[in-house]
Amino acid sequence: MIVIMNPDATCREVKNVVDAIENVGMEAKIMEGSKQKIVGLIGDKSNINSLSLEALPGVDHTVPISKSYKLASREFHPQSSIVNIGGIKIGRGNFVIMAGPCAVESLEQLLESAKIAKAGGAQFLRGGAYKPRTSPYSFQGLKNEGLKYLAEARNQTGLKVITEVTEVEAVETISKYADMLQVGARNMQNFRLLKEVGQTNMPVLLKRGLSATLEEWLNAAEYIMKEGNNNVVLCERGIRTYETYTRNTLDMSAVAAIKHLSHLPIIVDPSHGTGKWRMVKPMSFAAVAAGADGLMIEMHPDPAKALSDGQQSLTPENYLEVTKGVYKIANFMKQEKLTITQL
Amino acid sequence: MIVIMNPDATCREVKNVVDAIENVGMEAKIMEGSKQKIVGLIGDKSNINSLSLEALPGVDHTVPISKSYKLASREFHPQSSIVNIGGIKIGRGNFVIMAGPCAVESLEQLLESAKIAKAGGAQFLRGGAYKPRTSPYSFQGLKNEGLKYLAEARNQTGLKVITEVTEVEAVETISKYADMLQVGARNMQNFRLLKEVGQTNMPVLLKRGLSATLEEWLNAAEYIMKEGNNNVVLCERGIRTYETYTRNTLDMSAVAAIKHLSHLPIIVDPSHGTGKWRMVKPMSFAAVAAGADGLMIEMHPDPAKALSDGQQSLTPENYLEVTKGVYKIANFMKQEKLTITQL
Amino acid sequence: MIVIMNPDATCREVKNVVDAIENVGMEAKIMEGSKQKIVGLIGDKSNINSLSLEALPGVDHTVPISKSYKLASREFHPQSSIVNIGGIKIGRGNFVIMAGPCAVESLEQLLESAKIAKAGGAQFLRGGAYKPRTSPYSFQGLKNEGLKYLAEARNQTGLKVITEVTEVEAVETISKYADMLQVGARNMQNFRLLKEVGQTNMPVLLKRGLSATLEEWLNAAEYIMKEGNNNVVLCERGIRTYETYTRNTLDMSAVAAIKHLSHLPIIVDPSHGTGKWRMVKPMSFAAVAAGADGLMIEMHPDPAKALSDGQQSLTPENYLEVTKGVYKIANFMKQEKLTITQL
Amino acid sequence: MIVIMNPDATCREVKNVVDAIENVGMEAKIMEGSKQKIVGLIGDKSNINSLSLEALPGVDHTVPISKSYKLASREFHPQSSIVNIGGIKIGRGNFVIMAGPCAVESLEQLLESAKIAKAGGAQFLRGGAYKPRTSPYSFQGLKNEGLKYLAEARNQTGLKVITEVTEVEAVETISKYADMLQVGARNMQNFRLLKEVGQTNMPVLLKRGLSATLEEWLNAAEYIMKEGNNNVVLCERGIRTYETYTRNTLDMSAVAAIKHLSHLPIIVDPSHGTGKWRMVKPMSFAAVAAGADGLMIEMHPDPAKALSDGQQSLTPENYLEVTKGVYKIANFMKQEKLTITQL
Repeated sequence: MIVIMNPDATCREVKNVVDAIENVGMEAKIMEGSKQKIVGLIGDKSNINSLSLEALPGVDHTVPISKSYKLASREFHPQSSIVNIGGIKIGRGNFVIMAGPCAVESLEQLLESAKIAKAGGAQFLRGGAYKPRTSPYSFQGLKNEGLKYLAEARNQTGLKVITEVTEVEAVETISKYADMLQVGARNMQNFRLLKEVGQTNMPVLLKRGLSATLEEWLNAAEYIMKEGNNNVVLCERGIRTYETYTRNTLDMSAVAAIKHLSHLPIIVDPSHGTGKWRMVKPMSFAAVAAGADGLMIEMHPDPAKALSDGQQSLTPENYLEVTKGVYKIANFMKQEKLTITQL
Repeated sequence: MIVIMNPDATCREVKNVVDAIENVGMEAKIMEGSKQKIVGLIGDKSNINSLSLEALPGVDHTVPISKSYKLASREFHPQSSIVNIGGIKIGRGNFVIMAGPCAVESLEQLLESAKIAKAGGAQFLRGGAYKPRTSPYSFQGLKNEGLKYLAEARNQTGLKVITEVTEVEAVETISKYADMLQVGARNMQNFRLLKEVGQTNMPVLLKRGLSATLEEWLNAAEYIMKEGNNNVVLCERGIRTYETYTRNTLDMSAVAAIKHLSHLPIIVDPSHGTGKWRMVKPMSFAAVAAGADGLMIEMHPDPAKALSDGQQSLTPENYLEVTKGVYKIANFMKQEKLTITQL
Repeated sequence: MIVIMNPDATCREVKNVVDAIENVGMEAKIMEGSKQKIVGLIGDKSNINSLSLEALPGVDHTVPISKSYKLASREFHPQSSIVNIGGIKIGRGNFVIMAGPCAVESLEQLLESAKIAKAGGAQFLRGGAYKPRTSPYSFQGLKNEGLKYLAEARNQTGLKVITEVTEVEAVETISKYADMLQVGARNMQNFRLLKEVGQTNMPVLLKRGLSATLEEWLNAAEYIMKEGNNNVVLCERGIRTYETYTRNTLDMSAVAAIKHLSHLPIIVDPSHGTGKWRMVKPMSFAAVAAGADGLMIEMHPDPAKALSDGQQSLTPENYLEVTKGVYKIANFMKQEKLTITQL
Repeated sequence: MIVIMNPDATCREVKNVVDAIENVGMEAKIMEGSKQKIVGLIGDKSNINSLSLEALPGVDHTVPISKSYKLASREFHPQSSIVNIGGIKIGRGNFVIMAGPCAVESLEQLLESAKIAKAGGAQFLRGGAYKPRTSPYSFQGLKNEGLKYLAEARNQTGLKVITEVTEVEAVETISKYADMLQVGARNMQNFRLLKEVGQTNMPVLLKRGLSATLEEWLNAAEYIMKEGNNNVVLCERGIRTYETYTRNTLDMSAVAAIKHLSHLPIIVDPSHGTGKWRMVKPMSFAAVAAGADGLMIEMHPDPAKALSDGQQSLTPENYLEVTKGVYKIANFMKQEKLTITQL
């Protein structure tokens, strides 16, 4: 961290800052600028939190230098990670598709979805049993009944199952039925939940919060990894901006940024990212080309009858067209050595 | 909800939409525009969730008409509510101040804070025992030890205690020590937690999420109220925008908007809202003038030594100056009948 | 437009709204909902502007239905447009690359840039002679001297020249030296300038404003087209969001949205879109895959010595690597009929 | 500016950075952190623009330290400025109200507006003759005819006239009819226009751009002041955020921030800031309390018939109620020495 003093800060004020830094066992270095002094802090990062230097007289503002996450950073782990989910690999060139309905609605709906998902080359079946909804009056999911359907679909198709966990109490149960736990956007900073999934050895898909910075997102991953669970895959699903035409603004550049800042695999969810089924195809193509390690796509046997998110779900035939194109592009890029696994 | 058809939608496509609406027991009305048809849905709102009309061919987009929350709306409850916390009233002209450190750090620090808070006219002592922090390496709070200090400070000063609850498991314990539960910005859509505090009869302060719309915020209140707990006070604490000079952008107009849309009291947190102690005074004055039912202010006996948020905490002397001004303005406005309790 | 009345609006208030609509020669239709009345306006759109219905008692809010632009809309012109710049086509499957330095700095720098641009397969040389800069103390461009260098580079390489026009007075001069005029992000709603370039017959590249909605952007195109100039190409260059890691947030989904809403070609500028040279490659690949009709890329013979935007400029060797990959992907997608020209 | 090197940057890479800095006549200082090196630049700021240090190998990122504006900064001019418009003072405790319709529609409408404005205590009549509109099909203003009406209203009431200038060619003419020029939000970075009004000696009201940072806004003021015109008043009019309930999000904290960063007066426009007439009263009260030097309020003799912005215009009676309250609060705060003129 560096501390920018006011241009008219007194020597005593600079001294106070230096003292405050040294009092917590860190070293302070002063750099004299043409207009103002700058004080740099050297030493163990964990002490920085016990300082509130901006409250000291003469301080203009402070600028953090070191990243606040470590385990999730590429500096700490230079090679891109591969996360292995029961034999299916994600990352470092291993590309996957997760597909299925927004919510598990019935066994029949789910089994049909699973068959189509598989036909399109998906390795994972997605489907929400515990649904976080903005309104308390919206469909809240089938809960444990839904989990059983997911397990049944897995048995019949061999697909891995990924489903969202929204509460600490459900982590254990869901872990029995699913192959991968999803932490949703609204829970990205539910630190208690992050710690809980960190204490399992289940692979975790960590969606980016609605307005989370990359730094906050990687810190959320750090919460999970700090508990000992390194099987974290990130998922860009659109961020909140002023634009209302799309449900969210899909931040495709996050794929590139994460490949620079972190070793963790990152996939893209173009369904939530755009909120419009029509835009899933171009954004899926774009995600592959950008270097994403996979896609999460909402697909429903009959979107117009979906209990949630029908407007962004692909029909089976659209889904098959999209995934066919996606694999063509992915394979071409691999063959031509154009795939971006690191930046 | 109304459904806007494409200008080139066929009669059959319009018919399909009408059928889909009628199939769930609602009534459909068609309005013929100069360019395109519009289909309106009449009837029980709860069926709307089972429709995904935007997925139907010929549909351009849909527009919600009714609000998705009810208990929290002013339509449902035209008179402004008063929330009573052990004799201290908030709302409908009853103005309060909640003050104290960001985090409970020690008994000594807290007791000193409490005395200063009270001297400035605060009715509530605030202080975090469970701290949600972006980085897992930051100070996470004293947990139950901190709760005991809060209770002790209450005993010594008579101030009501408000503290944040970040996890379901802690609700019961915290309810024993505190007079009011705070649900923080990062947990505004932690629906499981909302339900849990809804099942207590504790007053709840619900902070606005970092990028929550007013609609989402009132729906979060609805989650609590639907469980039977109507003692909800809202707290505007700044939203995330592109501007980085301030920590957040304090949305002062939310005070006015809430007074129009809802009957619930709303207070303002200028400390988190700006992230700069210097700006707490003008924003506190502005909040009172705008009609806020109270203020939540961070104050620390020695901000430069605060374990968190020192840069936005007032010193005791600044705090006393701010609250003195605040009460002068509040009283003047009351006396001149300028206080805005409803819009 | 439709008008949503308050649930407790009186019949007289509804009547007032109907009267106001009919007074300007439009037709009003009433739809009775379960909670509130909705009034629809039918007729000539241009009269809507003379109404301020939200100011009438009993009105909750209004919702626009028709798009406010016409000439730029796909409804008006269903087939994707091709813009022809002296024989170089953009749109409907015709893909182009515009490359060059942020600013024209010297004849030598520009000629070297032009040769490299051409070697990478660019059809256009870009370079700013008139530079809009946030600070008045930053380099403001070589102005007319720079224009001459651009013309010279065109002569030597055969590349088309595109350069930014920042003021009405310069339109005529720049039109003599350039093949295509660029209207920059900061001038997207400089309506006087839009009209001026609309009155030339020069092709125009219209960049999206820093926080422009798609609707506003297409209305800006409409300003140009209404003056008789249909040679408009749109350019997505990133929007302003809360994320600070990237200079802007490249809204890749805008490519898909524009292909649905409009017939105009759209290209992507990954240099300004990300602000980091490292991210230009993945975002260029993604843009092609998403269906963009072209790319605008900043490249400099020696980025570290660039007078502006060095941090986002590619070195010559990086540029050649990126464009090689881009053309490979573009050709593969064309051959496999995966190119998205319409949605 | 300081340069943060990568943790694994080589000595040669650090040397390269130092050389690049010294080559432009600045001094480089190295600070050795625990993880990475930091290089500080000391010297004449104007050379910084000729460096693109982030393009150099081994550089992680750069952080600006000095402000990019000077004349507009409080450091340069510690005392709060007063801008004098023909005898009416704004700033340093001098509070003004500017009121009137969004657009000049007719002589009759304007004269009526002027009388009401004056009755409410306004010193300025506002009204647009040149209207920047999102759609080319919306009412574009009466242009010079409107200017004559404004001059007539000034003659009849003695009010000062402020009106918007949207194009360079109109500056001279408008300067003849108006007392103060307004540069609108969409033109805040129309640098050519800023220079032009900077070359007049007319007082200028500079509205904040839709998504302008405080830094960009003050740099826009700097463009005007650099040309020799110091009579600049800033106007906060709401910024673009994700929230759609209000037309913009009124950034009340900008009043406080500007009072810290700059000596220029700042007023608030609650009409555009909220887009809802109902919210003008609470936001006007809040602005006064926050320390704003004035208000710009839209008022129309018959808002429902306004040619633009009727939904945010006050009726005459609401206007009179609002201004009465505003002056009561302003006077009370002055008398109690609570007015914030500097932070």
